[in-house]
Amino acid sequence: MATDVLTTACPVPIPQGDRVRLAHGGGGRASRDLVERIFAPAFANPCLEARHDGAVLSLPGHRVAITTDSYVVKPLFFPGGDIGSLAVNGTVNDLAMCGARPLALSAAFVLEEGFAMFDLERVAASMARAADAAGVAIVTGDTKVVEKGKGDGLYLNTSGIGVVEHARRIEPAAVRAGDRIVLSGDIGRHGIAILSARESLGFDTRLESDCAPLSGPVTALLESGVDVHCLRDLTRGGLGAALVEIAESARVRLELGELAIPVSEAVAGACEMLGLDPLYVANEGRFIAFVAAEDAERAAEILRRHPVSAEARVIGTVTGAGRGLVSMRTCLGASRVVDLPAGDLLPRIC
Amino acid sequence: MATDVLTTACPVPIPQGDRVRLAHGGGGRASRDLVERIFAPAFANPCLEARHDGAVLSLPGHRVAITTDSYVVKPLFFPGGDIGSLAVNGTVNDLAMCGARPLALSAAFVLEEGFAMFDLERVAASMARAADAAGVAIVTGDTKVVEKGKGDGLYLNTSGIGVVEHARRIEPAAVRAGDRIVLSGDIGRHGIAILSARESLGFDTRLESDCAPLSGPVTALLESGVDVHCLRDLTRGGLGAALVEIAESARVRLELGELAIPVSEAVAGACEMLGLDPLYVANEGRFIAFVAAEDAERAAEILRRHPVSAEARVIGTVTGAGRGLVSMRTCLGASRVVDLPAGDLLPRIC
Repeated sequence: MATDVLTTACPVPIPQGDRVRLAHGGGGRASRDLVERIFAPAFANPCLEARHDGAVLSLPGHRVAITTDSYVVKPLFFPGGDIGSLAVNGTVNDLAMCGARPLALSAAFVLEEGFAMFDLERVAASMARAADAAGVAIVTGDTKVVEKGKGDGLYLNTSGIGVVEHARRIEPAAVRAGDRIVLSGDIGRHGIAILSARESLGFDTRLESDCAPLSGPVTALLESGVDVHCLRDLTRGGLGAALVEIAESARVRLELGELAIPVSEAVAGACEMLGLDPLYVANEGRFIAFVAAEDAERAAEILRRHPVSAEARVIGTVTGAGRGLVSMRTCLGASRVVDLPAGDLLPRIC
Repeated sequence: MATDVLTTACPVPIPQGDRVRLAHGGGGRASRDLVERIFAPAFANPCLEARHDGAVLSLPGHRVAITTDSYVVKPLFFPGGDIGSLAVNGTVNDLAMCGARPLALSAAFVLEEGFAMFDLERVAASMARAADAAGVAIVTGDTKVVEKGKGDGLYLNTSGIGVVEHARRIEPAAVRAGDRIVLSGDIGRHGIAILSARESLGFDTRLESDCAPLSGPVTALLESGVDVHCLRDLTRGGLGAALVEIAESARVRLELGELAIPVSEAVAGACEMLGLDPLYVANEGRFIAFVAAEDAERAAEILRRHPVSAEARVIGTVTGAGRGLVSMRTCLGASRVVDLPAGDLLPRIC
């Protein structure tokens, strides 16, 4: 996507009080006007210029990754991001976690009748900036409108495709006994930032979501020749859920050191106050890599060269085959079992 | 997707009164259980088995089409289909309209707290059947849950990729003066079926949605060597909106014969009663093809070999360059201008 997308002005300024109407989802003149006024200027690229129902792309390889996520985050705007940057980065990151270079995204909006057009424009601009930063284009889209009271402002789906430029299989099944687990940075910031914004809890005002694209450090890792077996971003369910899911899928046992897991003072304080475990709090710019033991320190060092993963470190080991047990040596020296969270700690975090 | 998906029983029967809870969208145990109980059995395929955030596919070509659509149809179940079959066929059809062979879909669910698990299972089963019929796999997905009152049961996004196995450009810009317009069948059935189900209007009970995959006849058309310039399915806004959009994009004038456009008696009767113009009523299994004049009759004949397009016929001509004017000779011999519908004739039709 060309960088001038950032400065492309909307051809007709959006009046401050303009709102989404049911007709904007009807496929007629109003639908088309919405595309021309909001989305086309924000996402401008040759695929969208064709004004077709889908986009056709040339691929530099024969293997592609495909992923999808719907976003229902509440509130739509939060410290460090909004539903637009979240949706772009989230899908870019899912592609990166497949070992793919993100190439193109789709964007599908479910708008509630009465949603402020001004806010929709802000979201679209934020998506364009995030896509530009991650080096992807938003190539196709869709808009639906539901009646007032049948939505919550805006639900957003981004799906994406990426190209896999290597022959490795990067997935839970590739994890082996002896692998080391590298964590890209401190955990819990996205979840606490959302909670703080939602409940007006007034935590440390410097606390922002970690929402960011991870394709840069992941590409560097893959290009370095580090023997990467599995990658996973730490979204809903946090680091804890990611570790348990991979351990169960790969049928291995994992052991972590609690002291190795970085948590900022602001997040630690908020979690203590709210009775939350940072291990299960969502992130939108953090990931773990399972790598061969001999490559672990080098992997952490490569990640530390990127601002988004500047605090990367080795946090644990795959100790052997098993039924998915994750244990953690606590700072008091005891061993604690890490399980999946049973319910929903923080609903609508993404 | 293997055909045995159709008969794969859910491992644990869903109790009749079981309902979606917020925890099902939380990324923890409940989220995983939902995937294992409902989606994994319904969509079983090797990509999903990897339980990763996305799917990696090998492609037989270098050009892919990508498309997305969110579905907010109301009611979720209607004569001739439901939101699940609609979402699969809709996305399959968008890929077909790009001249692509549909390969894989993603499915992203935004569920309302309290939605009946039994209905979710019905939708998933319907999606699996539709995907099987269209020869595509559902390879990745996502689930979010919003609070009761913040949704309307279920909103569903399907995105898809397809492979383009020819060198032609099939898009509005490829339409030429002299091209003929071929319509695949009678119009208006989906919209009237939805309206009938929604308002309990009690029209002809045999009136069903035309919801169906169009990839079969489109592939046949492309493989026959017919010189196809543009394809478009006739969803929101119906035949009228599709023609105007293409005429405007391609900067051409179109002329139609009203007598050539088939409308069933049931649809014509319902439209007359409701004051609707069938030209603007949505379809989910109808399309138009712009083809070179010398190939038009052969194109219609090829389409008529497929049950879904058994009534295909030539309905109009691209008369020359222009600013997007579409005119229709009415059955009374007059000439009428076809414009985009201004508002939303039938909200939440798809």
